[in-house]
Amino acid sequence: MMPLSVLEAVRDAMIDFDGKGYSILELNHRSAHFDEIRRELKERIRSLMSVPEEYEILFCPGGGRQQFSMIPLNLLTESGRGGYVVTGKWSQLAYEECARITKAALLWKGDGSTLPTATIEVPVDVDYVYYCDNETVDGTEFRDLPPLDRSDALVVADMSSNFMSRPVDVSRYGVLWAGVQKNFGASGLSVLIVRKNLIRNKAKPVPLMLDWMKYAQTDSVPNSVPVLQFYVALLMARWVESMGGLEAMDRAAKAKSALLYGAIDANPGMYVNEIPSSNRSRMNVVFRLRDESLTEKFVREAEDEGMINLAGHRSKGGIRVSLYNAMPIDAVEKLVQFMKSFSNRYAV
Amino acid sequence: MMPLSVLEAVRDAMIDFDGKGYSILELNHRSAHFDEIRRELKERIRSLMSVPEEYEILFCPGGGRQQFSMIPLNLLTESGRGGYVVTGKWSQLAYEECARITKAALLWKGDGSTLPTATIEVPVDVDYVYYCDNETVDGTEFRDLPPLDRSDALVVADMSSNFMSRPVDVSRYGVLWAGVQKNFGASGLSVLIVRKNLIRNKAKPVPLMLDWMKYAQTDSVPNSVPVLQFYVALLMARWVESMGGLEAMDRAAKAKSALLYGAIDANPGMYVNEIPSSNRSRMNVVFRLRDESLTEKFVREAEDEGMINLAGHRSKGGIRVSLYNAMPIDAVEKLVQFMKSFSNRYAV
Repeated sequence: MMPLSVLEAVRDAMIDFDGKGYSILELNHRSAHFDEIRRELKERIRSLMSVPEEYEILFCPGGGRQQFSMIPLNLLTESGRGGYVVTGKWSQLAYEECARITKAALLWKGDGSTLPTATIEVPVDVDYVYYCDNETVDGTEFRDLPPLDRSDALVVADMSSNFMSRPVDVSRYGVLWAGVQKNFGASGLSVLIVRKNLIRNKAKPVPLMLDWMKYAQTDSVPNSVPVLQFYVALLMARWVESMGGLEAMDRAAKAKSALLYGAIDANPGMYVNEIPSSNRSRMNVVFRLRDESLTEKFVREAEDEGMINLAGHRSKGGIRVSLYNAMPIDAVEKLVQFMKSFSNRYAV
Repeated sequence: MMPLSVLEAVRDAMIDFDGKGYSILELNHRSAHFDEIRRELKERIRSLMSVPEEYEILFCPGGGRQQFSMIPLNLLTESGRGGYVVTGKWSQLAYEECARITKAALLWKGDGSTLPTATIEVPVDVDYVYYCDNETVDGTEFRDLPPLDRSDALVVADMSSNFMSRPVDVSRYGVLWAGVQKNFGASGLSVLIVRKNLIRNKAKPVPLMLDWMKYAQTDSVPNSVPVLQFYVALLMARWVESMGGLEAMDRAAKAKSALLYGAIDANPGMYVNEIPSSNRSRMNVVFRLRDESLTEKFVREAEDEGMINLAGHRSKGGIRVSLYNAMPIDAVEKLVQFMKSFSNRYAV
């Protein structure tokens, strides 16, 4: 979901972009105009997230799975392993890809609703510790970094689904990255915030488009990049700023998710979410109907009232409500009303 | 450059796409609606290009340079080499990437204006022969496949800049691919037409997003793909069909390029293109001013008359005119008039 003002701005750029006589779709990726879009986009991300000077901001085409390969290929030393904290579907996939193409260590694995609380041991041959800050499918979200026994461990965070939804202390991370398609734009681009000394020449050759160095050297234009997605991300950055920045996004996310979890917990005979409240995601509220035969009816009746995309991830079933930045609280209130009415109508 | 009707259709999909109440930018890459877009897109490509049943049509994010890595990683056997016919900048870059990450054989190399005419010897350890059908920067275009001594050689063609500009006998190729941003859409997506038996499980693990198998298994949705670019390609396919298909595109390309080469050759005191006429590209007309001090003036005066993007590639200088499908012949006529007038005004 994206703000209407952003969609309108993209629409208005489709025939005559900024009065230049060409479409945003025709904008050359080698033009000064596109350089300026990237410059402003980087500057706004740096400002919104208070990104320190020693971090580079890179943009890569492709979604998360491309980074699942790029992270070990760019960070691992000859004999090192990638360390993974697996809390759900996305960190599991990242772990599997690292293990498949390089070497990986499984540092911790939960049951999908739990997050690590005891200190995790990080073996000396582990070059980085990877975790997923918000598990979109499982509905969990970290409140802080995973607890590690090595305070100097290099931490890599997937923030695809909670990027730009709260302030983050970037200096605690080696790499922080996000596919833009949840909170920051249109499918087809990832943002990476990488500590500059981690962008290195490689001993073993890495395919060109998987090498962060190539992106750093070309100001993220190693080839024909998805120009449109950069512009949409810029519009999203302007929008986040106009709405009050990351503190405002965080307040809204807390208010929206509290409303929805409240509606679930108030009807325990009808709705079930067993995730401990300290692990619950502010972005993706996942629950099931106690009587699972009612799930389809719930989804269909909600759709009839204009609330779409409520079916859970195909691997999990149940209901999933995504509360990304652009979702207004009114929509959540409408859903909560619907949930009450549904519960009244079908409770046994 | 894209047809106005395509840009208008994208504009109209920006707020309420096909009356569904969401934007094309919000369209979920796992939705039935997006499945239908890909289905129609593949069907139209298959029909326009008469793609035989034993070929798969794949879509990959990223531009050409991603395929420069993917081609050797997907095609090379354990001990084999990629064979390269180097006719200009883009085939040179493809060769360099293959050599850097795997093993490559340079089969032929010209001076940028020549194309091979004598039969090229293909060593037995060469798994495929790669060439670039149209060199965007150098302004050359093959009229037929490169002449090879092995009639069974597996041919891989980069058609990024002349895709959909003429009928092609797909059955003569192992792989034929194109970044869509020239003739078939908006920057950020490539189309591949691959003989199905070349999509294989790999002995050595290939990063997930560089493995054609992963694209084939997921109907080109291995992850969060650039949804918008797929839709624009579909609109372009519909447009090509509405204009009369590839024969009509070919006729228009020949007419437009003949007009422009005629204007160059008619003013040899002012304009120079030394490419033999049988090698000249119908898509990218590259020339220089005999008095190179006039180049900047030429570009600026043309811009004043609304003709933009005429400066040659930064690696080459001079003038480059791209005559992609969407460029109307009127625009070429206007340029030719300008060239005559410029020549009259500045000839010595």
